[in-house]
Amino acid sequence: MSDWKTEWRLIADRVSHFIRTDNFPDRIRPDFLRDAVRAYPCAGGKRLRPVLLMWSCGLFGGEPHKALPAAAAVEIYHNWTLVHDDIIDCDDLRRGKPTTHASLRELAGARYKTGPEAGAKFGSDFAILAGDLQQAWAMDALLRLKSKGVPDNVVLYLAERMQRDLARELISGEAVDVEFGTRGSLNVSEEEVREMIAGKTGAILRYCVRAGALIAKETPYFKGTELDLITGFADALGLAFQLQDDFLGIFGDEKKFGKPIGSDFQEAKPTLLFLAALQKADSVKKSRLLALTGLPEYSPESIAEIRDILTATGAADQLRGEIVRCSDRAERLLDKLPDNPYRSYLHELTAELINRDV
Amino acid sequence: MSDWKTEWRLIADRVSHFIRTDNFPDRIRPDFLRDAVRAYPCAGGKRLRPVLLMWSCGLFGGEPHKALPAAAAVEIYHNWTLVHDDIIDCDDLRRGKPTTHASLRELAGARYKTGPEAGAKFGSDFAILAGDLQQAWAMDALLRLKSKGVPDNVVLYLAERMQRDLARELISGEAVDVEFGTRGSLNVSEEEVREMIAGKTGAILRYCVRAGALIAKETPYFKGTELDLITGFADALGLAFQLQDDFLGIFGDEKKFGKPIGSDFQEAKPTLLFLAALQKADSVKKSRLLALTGLPEYSPESIAEIRDILTATGAADQLRGEIVRCSDRAERLLDKLPDNPYRSYLHELTAELINRDV
Repeated sequence: MSDWKTEWRLIADRVSHFIRTDNFPDRIRPDFLRDAVRAYPCAGGKRLRPVLLMWSCGLFGGEPHKALPAAAAVEIYHNWTLVHDDIIDCDDLRRGKPTTHASLRELAGARYKTGPEAGAKFGSDFAILAGDLQQAWAMDALLRLKSKGVPDNVVLYLAERMQRDLARELISGEAVDVEFGTRGSLNVSEEEVREMIAGKTGAILRYCVRAGALIAKETPYFKGTELDLITGFADALGLAFQLQDDFLGIFGDEKKFGKPIGSDFQEAKPTLLFLAALQKADSVKKSRLLALTGLPEYSPESIAEIRDILTATGAADQLRGEIVRCSDRAERLLDKLPDNPYRSYLHELTAELINRDV
Repeated sequence: MSDWKTEWRLIADRVSHFIRTDNFPDRIRPDFLRDAVRAYPCAGGKRLRPVLLMWSCGLFGGEPHKALPAAAAVEIYHNWTLVHDDIIDCDDLRRGKPTTHASLRELAGARYKTGPEAGAKFGSDFAILAGDLQQAWAMDALLRLKSKGVPDNVVLYLAERMQRDLARELISGEAVDVEFGTRGSLNVSEEEVREMIAGKTGAILRYCVRAGALIAKETPYFKGTELDLITGFADALGLAFQLQDDFLGIFGDEKKFGKPIGSDFQEAKPTLLFLAALQKADSVKKSRLLALTGLPEYSPESIAEIRDILTATGAADQLRGEIVRCSDRAERLLDKLPDNPYRSYLHELTAELINRDV
């Protein structure tokens, strides 16, 4: 395994250890709510956000291990948003396992012998409370930066940024995405989708790199070019990541990608890929594409036809082109930042995320 | 108006002004989510929790106005829990107005022409996100204690207590209360109900008086007898308040009380009043009482019969007796604290809450 992957693995392990041994959930009642609060954050995963935060800390000359509570905090934060998103999206599976509300629904039937309707209500009610507690847990973890010797005014500043920037931008992004679904994707503009991505996907990545930098610099007053550069890096990375997700959502391999191919089309999501295809298609292709959204099921033939239209219109190429440009921009911005091993790790991470098929 | 009521009114006005002019919600999108985030906190109400916090600050020799951001924070905090509770309890009205999810459901129909089912989903989805944002707003308001010259270490400590004590105890209390409903009130013990009340109602009152004291003392290390006394005061007040609520829920006047008389019996809630009556009743009265829970509607005759049983068994007297004892305990604890106008205000407030009929 190459250096940077070993480093990534080490961080993922330390973050998992922090979260799994943390005593915040211990006093939560009832027992099944405590288990639900622990479930997503303890489950593992790539731990991409913690890695970004700790490498940004290293990049700016800090000791990454001092940033560990913040790294755990962004991971827990990310997870509470997933718990509430899964309720809103009625998703019963995440990474092949039951989502929080789905597993609480099972528990309601098994332990309390509820019927299906009462069980579904039980599942979503307690999943709301589980996410609420995880939001508190994330902030609590962040405040423990104090125990690593991070100055009080830096901790306070990062707490404030978590509420004012991260919460507002991320939750507004999620809300706008849900609103798109109600409004109908034909009434959504490309600009609105870009703004939504900047909030829903981008806000937490920006928070990660900026928090890492401020912990390294030990002051909330660190501002200027370097902070702008790393913020631009996070923005470019986030957009590339989201576009790649949209691309794999239709051109990917279901076994590797982990969710059903075509689900964006099924939910009639106004992805940038879909909007580009609509704009470029002639009237025949456009009406075929629209006929292929919102179907109850997607046969290999339907998927193939969608792929053909996306390719023939040039929408797929346009998207691939933008992913490459975003990735290039991310790498160029990185190159203006201090040259050290963390910068190389961040370069590797960028290449990995753009070239992933999972 | 007497002195203490003028003081209360002044605090309520300042807290309302802080909340209504605060710019936290401004950047929330879409517009209707921003409005939903503002709705409950800006609506007014007694502002009991802010008053407790600021008077506790005064009692301990601090300047109450320095505590204003914390007072606004506990009010906003209380409101996010109401928004999520209202979803969970399927309550469409609060203080005679549509709850958050109910008014968002209306908006879905009016603006997006959704059907009833999609409208209900829209209402609850965005109400989840509104509560999430309010949780962030509460913490953000708290952190602005800094701008009042409260030392960084005190602000950090209060933020930590908000997550570790308040969030865990309050949300666990709410969760246990919801679980009672699933389990059935016959399977719930008096001790469990008392623990639930200590969390759901008590945690935020404890937080208020302790936060007020620490802001006054300007140190997170203020501990000992006086802090224990004011905490005991908050606990006694909280229990008396909840018991009075249970009492008014069946013996009150619907017009003054603001919610339907008998709703606890309709929802088969295991209140301490109900559990006491069950324990004291002979088998005939017990089966009548059980027959009178969970009815679709409550006629004046049913209400009268429930009142008769609660009175005849002595459960009503027992409850009134405990309310008086709690109130006496609260007053006795107060008397051991510094003698100043704020102590008198807190005495008056205790008497008011216990003797209220609204």
